[in-house]
Amino acid sequence: MLPDFTSIPYRTARHTPRGSVRRAPWMTPEGTPIKSLYSEADLQELGHLDSLPGLPPFLGGPYATMYTGRPWTVRQYAGFSTAEESNAFYRNALAAGQRGLSVAFDLPTHRGYDSDHERVLGDVGKAGVAVDSVEDMKLLFEGIPLARQSVSMTMNGAVLPVMAFFIVAAEEQGTPLHALRGTIQNDILKEFMVRNTFIYPPGPSMRITRDVIAYCAAHMPRFNSVSVSGYHMHEAGAPADLELAYTLANGLEYVRASLEAGLNIDDFAPRISFFFGIGMHHYMEIAKLRAARCLWARLIKPFAPSNWKSLALRMHCQTSGFSLTAQHPLNNIVRTTAEALAAVFGHTQSLHTNALDEALALPSAPAARIARNTQLFLAEEADVTRAIDPWAGSYFVEALTGKLMQRAWSQLQEIEEAGGMTAAIAQGIPKMRIEAAAARKQARIDSRKDVVVGVNHFRAPGSKPPSDLMTVAHEAVLSQQLQRLNRVRATRGPIVVRQVLDGLRAAAQKPRANLLEWAVRAARARATLGEISQALEQEFGRHEGTVPLAAGAYLAESPGTSQESLALSDHFAALEGRRARILVAKLGQDGHDRGARVIATAFADMGFDVDVGPLFSTPEEVARQAVDNDVHVVGVSSLAGAHAILVPQLVEHLRTLGRPDILVILGGIVPQEDHNALLEQGIAAIFGPGTVVTEAAAQVLRLLLNEHHEPVQR
Amino acid sequence: MLPDFTSIPYRTARHTPRGSVRRAPWMTPEGTPIKSLYSEADLQELGHLDSLPGLPPFLGGPYATMYTGRPWTVRQYAGFSTAEESNAFYRNALAAGQRGLSVAFDLPTHRGYDSDHERVLGDVGKAGVAVDSVEDMKLLFEGIPLARQSVSMTMNGAVLPVMAFFIVAAEEQGTPLHALRGTIQNDILKEFMVRNTFIYPPGPSMRITRDVIAYCAAHMPRFNSVSVSGYHMHEAGAPADLELAYTLANGLEYVRASLEAGLNIDDFAPRISFFFGIGMHHYMEIAKLRAARCLWARLIKPFAPSNWKSLALRMHCQTSGFSLTAQHPLNNIVRTTAEALAAVFGHTQSLHTNALDEALALPSAPAARIARNTQLFLAEEADVTRAIDPWAGSYFVEALTGKLMQRAWSQLQEIEEAGGMTAAIAQGIPKMRIEAAAARKQARIDSRKDVVVGVNHFRAPGSKPPSDLMTVAHEAVLSQQLQRLNRVRATRGPIVVRQVLDGLRAAAQKPRANLLEWAVRAARARATLGEISQALEQEFGRHEGTVPLAAGAYLAESPGTSQESLALSDHFAALEGRRARILVAKLGQDGHDRGARVIATAFADMGFDVDVGPLFSTPEEVARQAVDNDVHVVGVSSLAGAHAILVPQLVEHLRTLGRPDILVILGGIVPQEDHNALLEQGIAAIFGPGTVVTEAAAQVLRLLLNEHHEPVQR
Repeated sequence: MLPDFTSIPYRTARHTPRGSVRRAPWMTPEGTPIKSLYSEADLQELGHLDSLPGLPPFLGGPYATMYTGRPWTVRQYAGFSTAEESNAFYRNALAAGQRGLSVAFDLPTHRGYDSDHERVLGDVGKAGVAVDSVEDMKLLFEGIPLARQSVSMTMNGAVLPVMAFFIVAAEEQGTPLHALRGTIQNDILKEFMVRNTFIYPPGPSMRITRDVIAYCAAHMPRFNSVSVSGYHMHEAGAPADLELAYTLANGLEYVRASLEAGLNIDDFAPRISFFFGIGMHHYMEIAKLRAARCLWARLIKPFAPSNWKSLALRMHCQTSGFSLTAQHPLNNIVRTTAEALAAVFGHTQSLHTNALDEALALPSAPAARIARNTQLFLAEEADVTRAIDPWAGSYFVEALTGKLMQRAWSQLQEIEEAGGMTAAIAQGIPKMRIEAAAARKQARIDSRKDVVVGVNHFRAPGSKPPSDLMTVAHEAVLSQQLQRLNRVRATRGPIVVRQVLDGLRAAAQKPRANLLEWAVRAARARATLGEISQALEQEFGRHEGTVPLAAGAYLAESPGTSQESLALSDHFAALEGRRARILVAKLGQDGHDRGARVIATAFADMGFDVDVGPLFSTPEEVARQAVDNDVHVVGVSSLAGAHAILVPQLVEHLRTLGRPDILVILGGIVPQEDHNALLEQGIAAIFGPGTVVTEAAAQVLRLLLNEHHEPVQR
Repeated sequence: MLPDFTSIPYRTARHTPRGSVRRAPWMTPEGTPIKSLYSEADLQELGHLDSLPGLPPFLGGPYATMYTGRPWTVRQYAGFSTAEESNAFYRNALAAGQRGLSVAFDLPTHRGYDSDHERVLGDVGKAGVAVDSVEDMKLLFEGIPLARQSVSMTMNGAVLPVMAFFIVAAEEQGTPLHALRGTIQNDILKEFMVRNTFIYPPGPSMRITRDVIAYCAAHMPRFNSVSVSGYHMHEAGAPADLELAYTLANGLEYVRASLEAGLNIDDFAPRISFFFGIGMHHYMEIAKLRAARCLWARLIKPFAPSNWKSLALRMHCQTSGFSLTAQHPLNNIVRTTAEALAAVFGHTQSLHTNALDEALALPSAPAARIARNTQLFLAEEADVTRAIDPWAGSYFVEALTGKLMQRAWSQLQEIEEAGGMTAAIAQGIPKMRIEAAAARKQARIDSRKDVVVGVNHFRAPGSKPPSDLMTVAHEAVLSQQLQRLNRVRATRGPIVVRQVLDGLRAAAQKPRANLLEWAVRAARARATLGEISQALEQEFGRHEGTVPLAAGAYLAESPGTSQESLALSDHFAALEGRRARILVAKLGQDGHDRGARVIATAFADMGFDVDVGPLFSTPEEVARQAVDNDVHVVGVSSLAGAHAILVPQLVEHLRTLGRPDILVILGGIVPQEDHNALLEQGIAAIFGPGTVVTEAAAQVLRLLLNEHHEPVQR
């Protein structure tokens, strides 16, 4: 017989193990030193917060029962080609266990162009679904009753026509506005910071955001009128403190704008939702989500809401695209699972899990199923829904949460001191800070301080890319899209359209008019997305943002690996009489500029003179700028598949302008099978995922120093 | 400017949210009710334990710095075909980030047969590497210096020759015994409970275990002389409380046996290691590993060790094979990741992660890489090594740990009251309890109470099996193995061999002689594994275990889905004058009997008369038993690929015995492409993974009731 369990005497002091030395604190990317072992004493020191879920400040969750009542919503971001094809994809996903929809629009739609606009023909239906008019929106939700199905839409720049199409599509389905559930992103501030799918300058853009919030407050009480998005900051390289601080600062800016427009805090604050990215820093991501709720409650408290829901931060999360690798796509399932679990531990309300092949293409159907299943395993097999705020009380995670809150609060203070986020953006503060962090991250990867399995450590022979990658039949999609657009234009009442667009323009001049109301009228009359956007562009203008580079950030983190390129760079300057000059360019409507900005920063740190070209340029515009600035090299960053057509055009334009000597190099995601054709068309070098930037810089310098330019592939 | 973070007043009482109702407690498979929300108050009630890692009772980890000093050891269990091929596999794995080796032996080796024994020809090199003599062992570690590389060996029944071969291989590499690091499983008790690769009866088996422990205590101070394994109980269906209690009870039995043999507790207790399985019950698995350490320290404390290491439980973990599905293998990456994370959160010392295709075959090389990478992501990318005992303090996990300890302690008491584990096994207690749990689990899956994504919920169209499944070139392996075995026999000194085997037999009769010492002498003389085993078999006999079924467990958990088969069963009994009778049989050397035992239990609950055939039978033996018992059906459970050859032989033997009317059905893992051939050879039905047992029972009854037996595939 054993004695009673608790009766066995235990004096730990009798047994003093060796090796009890504690490690030096871990310096997080947020710059916070973290011990490896915390105890109750540490929590008391940090001013440990009441974490009862469902009660302000909501550290432990916005609801009292959390997942024990109902798991989070499986909400996969998806959309491609035509409305019909995306509709079929949605209906399959809903049948296979997905709960919420999340619409991905194509780049032309984001940027306010109809599918037949000459600048965007190559992007139609590629990275999302093309929506030109209310007819497309109706097809998108055919057979999906909007009265019952919550729909999230990632739309910011062209939020007015897209929301208007959605509203009119619901009307014509017979769904009353007050029944609509879902979310519109409508978060324009982060577009100026990181995501770049803005259309108008900041002032009018903020007015549009506010008008959407006001419209929803009045007519759509169950619809989240803004989804304040840290996700894109995360993907742009923001550590958790910056992602938290800037996201909440953006939210605060929308609150203030709405209050200034005369709304009551309780009319709209409960319909603000948030959106965070989840990377591989497991504990930090859990802490981030818990901290976000607590910080937001504290930021809103001074506005004295009378509804507790105004204080409760609800969120959607997405696993990190940046953490995925094009090499060995199956590895990405592991990463996404670990990230999804962090999101769940942090008590997100809905979740998108990336598909294993998303570093290569849009998700194929089998990859999309595994991504969806990742959530179903966690929700249904792994018992993680059994506990409410399971990390509550954990010395380590509570301490991390507290430290992170302190750090984010001081970042929030910096933005407040700059005069709030709109002012801080104008001063370039958030973009600079995020880019410096991204450059440091790249330097840590390049110098192998941060491990990326299969890329900078534990490399393995290249695996075949999956054979069933999703491809969009671009020609067919474009022709179908143009047909429908022409049919809409041919069958509508032209005079009504002219009247509603005139009305919209007039409303733009009246600050008290609600632009979404006018956009809805335009949508009913079958005005197109491009027409609505262009009408406002005539009033507001189109924005071009320029922000200086975060100089020195890369070099400071990775001095050791930079020696060769610095020496070559000096050698070139000595021979040539001036420093090597590079134009870092983006082509087409792809606004993802983390890669381009990191390269620009790192090349500047390597002694290059760096010009950063404007986003959304045509090949001709880039060639002209390269010649005007007399650069030695044009570096094109391509992530959206535009390289095959646009980069050879750039080479051709340089020839036409009499400067075939200007090297064109290409970086980003370029399938191996395209390499030879590109090299034959005069591209000097191609740098794929996993490239060490300092090595690329040295390589470019060697090319410049060598009269016989030999093509290089990495 | 924002106010100071902590200065914002917070009175949660002012905001009383709705929906604060707590859910009913979750009744775990362990039978413990668990609330969804715990607080500090609950922990005080549970008698919260000091959890400082590195200090007894080691709740928080056996070492003070844990993974912050060094991550866990990536130790993948692998082995197949010949020693040369396995050696190449190990060397590749070590180059790609693996840290420890873990050898899988084939079934003949486990069961003490040389590769040329007529009973085992079909199993040579299939589920592991074939090792017949010290020459094979030397090849296995060629180019892998045993002085530096820790090696784990899963061996129990034939532990004497295998340990002897390892020792002699090290000797002949020039490695002194005291330098050898690694683990021998040597845990015979669980073989009698669940794993079935025993050779001798319990008494002599325990003596062999003890002799290995004593030998290592004397000569191999850095080698773990026993790895007490809950993993196989886990895979056999034991919930966490049973896995914990029975594993620790086995450990306790080895401690007592070693003390009785005159060893000092501190001479061997620090070299006892443990091995647990990790399934999808995330929090429970974390709690299990923490609880295991604390319980073990409490069990050992009364033996008054003076070295604290005697109290510290160190463990290896393996993710669950049972949780993997043959349908949609890529899903298994997700499951394995979640399980691996639980093992890491529970602070395992080393870990095996299953490969995605292990429900179908041995791991292919790409699948093995992803499995290994799963650990590298967690260790290197996910920052989970930053924290020591990260769940310490978590109200939920600490409470779960406490509840589980209480539950396991009472299961331990039951074993103690039965007279310790050897006595409890003789009474059939542990096997019965585990099988009842397995039957309940199957009933919960069959009745869709427990979700298995892609199997009983969220089914999707079948995906293609991976094209690159690993196959063993059986003919070539066998011929190579027989050649080497013959060469060993031809080149050794036959008289010396006879002498050492005589010595071994004599030692078996002297309880104070150390059998491993004699086995080492035999190994040096090039006696084979089969010869060493057979010498002892002559003294000890070969064991056959029979344990009654856990009747009623299936039906009790799933009464609703059993109606049809119960009615058919009664109908058959009424027509035939006796109940339908089935012989549940295993063929060949595959001892995995969870499936067979669950089927037997469930069929008995459905009104069948059930005979359970002995393990390791030949087709002829099974046919004879079927005829002798006049059964209506033989159900063969096949997991090790023996179906293709052995089951048609069974059909043929039934014909020869004049009973072609006895139906033969087949369950287990049978590749789709084998189905037609098997059906043509007279198999009446094939039941694959995901079969609902009650539906299978009904199907069998319909076949019996139908004179025209139509083949059925599921």
